[in-house]
Amino acid sequence: MKTENPPDILCQTAKLPWIEFGAGIHYKVLRTSAETGDWTVIFRCAKGSGFPPHYHHGAGEYLMLEGVMDYRAGKAVAGDYGYEPLGVYHESTTFPEDSELLFTNHGPVAFVNPDMSISMILDWKFFAEKQAEHAAGAA
Amino acid sequence: MKTENPPDILCQTAKLPWIEFGAGIHYKVLRTSAETGDWTVIFRCAKGSGFPPHYHHGAGEYLMLEGVMDYRAGKAVAGDYGYEPLGVYHESTTFPEDSELLFTNHGPVAFVNPDMSISMILDWKFFAEKQAEHAAGAA
Amino acid sequence: MKTENPPDILCQTAKLPWIEFGAGIHYKVLRTSAETGDWTVIFRCAKGSGFPPHYHHGAGEYLMLEGVMDYRAGKAVAGDYGYEPLGVYHESTTFPEDSELLFTNHGPVAFVNPDMSISMILDWKFFAEKQAEHAAGAA
Amino acid sequence: MKTENPPDILCQTAKLPWIEFGAGIHYKVLRTSAETGDWTVIFRCAKGSGFPPHYHHGAGEYLMLEGVMDYRAGKAVAGDYGYEPLGVYHESTTFPEDSELLFTNHGPVAFVNPDMSISMILDWKFFAEKQAEHAAGAA
Repeated sequence: MKTENPPDILCQTAKLPWIEFGAGIHYKVLRTSAETGDWTVIFRCAKGSGFPPHYHHGAGEYLMLEGVMDYRAGKAVAGDYGYEPLGVYHESTTFPEDSELLFTNHGPVAFVNPDMSISMILDWKFFAEKQAEHAAGAA
Repeated sequence: MKTENPPDILCQTAKLPWIEFGAGIHYKVLRTSAETGDWTVIFRCAKGSGFPPHYHHGAGEYLMLEGVMDYRAGKAVAGDYGYEPLGVYHESTTFPEDSELLFTNHGPVAFVNPDMSISMILDWKFFAEKQAEHAAGAA
Repeated sequence: MKTENPPDILCQTAKLPWIEFGAGIHYKVLRTSAETGDWTVIFRCAKGSGFPPHYHHGAGEYLMLEGVMDYRAGKAVAGDYGYEPLGVYHESTTFPEDSELLFTNHGPVAFVNPDMSISMILDWKFFAEKQAEHAAGAA
Repeated sequence: MKTENPPDILCQTAKLPWIEFGAGIHYKVLRTSAETGDWTVIFRCAKGSGFPPHYHHGAGEYLMLEGVMDYRAGKAVAGDYGYEPLGVYHESTTFPEDSELLFTNHGPVAFVNPDMSISMILDWKFFAEKQAEHAAGAA
């Protein structure tokens, strides 16, 4: 069995670039899966930033690393863990302090317009492509 | 859609008890899934502690929150993220410093004897039962 | 362990109603998961029917039970199994014979317009709601 | 998006070999996933055959294609679908008629001894290796 031991992935996050998401939010890409659609990132959200209304077409999970996230479930502070179930709609997610969180989503997140039509899909592919662009740019 | 918005789970980890795993290792249970077998915990590992040889019957993922984990892939330090693929065998995992890590496993981990027979299965049920016992004890 | 043995689900498909999907296509709902977003159905597709262009926001799997499905990968006949990876786009899927197939999708399928904007999302919730409506109607 | 359309997999099961599992049971391997541990097979079980006691370390799903499977949930006949939840223990599974079923398991199945110790693990790797051996033998 040991001879076929599959490779571990150790991701030294300190060496990863922060990529701009927009309006005070940056991210580092830790992992994306083309098979399951999972994507894991660290979001860094400046005081006063936030995510627009979105719908989870896959469950999400986070661990607050620092700061505060104010959203539907309440105020999550450093050390708090949250599970955002499949199909949940988050109308308002804001960061009243400079914040960082580890975030995994199991599938796509859809940003929606006021009429609930989809304005943008955030999925593993979005993050995989941004990561590849930045790796190419750094070379 | 909002009327059926499924419930978010916000887990205030500071209020959760540390449960003894054995030999310098404690954990807090953040989430377990009876459907998928996923389990997410925070491990607190005292300097000099470690996990015995084990085999992942489901992929694992971690984020080092503090300290150092020395294992097959190298030394993971605070901020590092790791993905431990399905089927990986970890012969030695030690903590040369007091450490904490967020850890999710997608299915069971089997602790194994030198002949690779299974000595103990660590799965969502193990953690769900320990969590329930402690909640009952605290009541 | 036996005392906690979780319940098996045995679904007698012969007793399930065929529900109309539209234009020669009907389905029976075998299972939907609110946690993972998986949905499993049997589609019955009349000769000459077909699915409009769609994009898989989750992988799909099928087993042809009878007939022929003509799609991007070729012609699948009774007994054939297919895996449709996450992110695949299927421009044309037609049934040149009366056909039946078992189909599971791990997440949503999006029917798209010629400009690739989304016209309709087919997910576990769609099927769970239709199933509930028919169960209520039959009562 | 079309230029990156990921490959569909169409598996012509009629061309796949039946591989002997033991004691009247054969199988064809349709798919195995090294990432998730899912494995999908068709089991062909001769009249009077059966599976020994086993424990599901991952949920299972099946569709009876012909014959009868007599197990904990009752008698499943051609056309019936079953969902076997994570952690279910099946003490006796027998086939009173020549039978075939499509079967997917999301992770390992453990065959157990009367004292519930594990005698054998059936996982994606078992099936991937058997499939590779037979493909090599056929070449």
